[in-house]
Amino acid sequence: MTAVRRGAGFLWEGVDVLEYKAFDEAYRDVTRQVLFGAAQGLPWELRYFEVAAGGHTTLERHAHPHAVVVVRGRGRVLVHPEIRTVTPHDLVHVPPMTWHQFQATRDEPLGFLCLVGIERDRPIRPTEEDLGALRADPKVAEFVRL
Amino acid sequence: MTAVRRGAGFLWEGVDVLEYKAFDEAYRDVTRQVLFGAAQGLPWELRYFEVAAGGHTTLERHAHPHAVVVVRGRGRVLVHPEIRTVTPHDLVHVPPMTWHQFQATRDEPLGFLCLVGIERDRPIRPTEEDLGALRADPKVAEFVRL
Repeated sequence: MTAVRRGAGFLWEGVDVLEYKAFDEAYRDVTRQVLFGAAQGLPWELRYFEVAAGGHTTLERHAHPHAVVVVRGRGRVLVHPEIRTVTPHDLVHVPPMTWHQFQATRDEPLGFLCLVGIERDRPIRPTEEDLGALRADPKVAEFVRL
Repeated sequence: MTAVRRGAGFLWEGVDVLEYKAFDEAYRDVTRQVLFGAAQGLPWELRYFEVAAGGHTTLERHAHPHAVVVVRGRGRVLVHPEIRTVTPHDLVHVPPMTWHQFQATRDEPLGFLCLVGIERDRPIRPTEEDLGALRADPKVAEFVRL
């Protein structure tokens, strides 16, 4: 395997463009590319996600943390209870068991690198009770998309 | 600690710009910023390195791998025995115990994200014998800077 793989914009040589998640309908217009991981014998994965204009990732939480570097476009992010706009090259840290969601703006995609351990727990989606608690904050209620 | 830290170009809010290495003279004009790591309770570190125009990192090897995403400028990289030019957003995988060096071009800086485990071995520099073996390849002999 060659040490260097070309990146042309935000597409990479030898890297498949995947659906964000195969078994989940709670997102919209998101792709995933795995840039580094098990194929290189590494204990972590570096993924590139791209949320199309108007799209969003799943509202979820899990025990594993995320370390994110925004590299393309504009969007907003919920890292509960914070809601922030993001542009390149903002850093987003999602601590364990923290509700989070990434949203692109209406007219631009949002692209970001996201680092996780290979061994990680499955994301949890909010129950009705969780949603009630989240929506008690009007800013969060306005933000979340399901 | 806030979940989002602003990046303005290639400088980040709350992140110190450090010397590449404090106790090593075998590099030239390189800075380091630790974007994620122990401060966020993570088992890996994501660093941003910037090699100024005409500069280079240390020629070295070590047991821990590197996963690199080029994000700024132009340069060349040795991942022995390969020598390649790199531009954004090329991916560079440095396997364990592989001699490597990053060099900026004469007129542009080279900036890259580099991912490592927090627990890692110290880099090893080449002995005279190692250098003799490396220089047996004329392309490598032309490339390496000490």
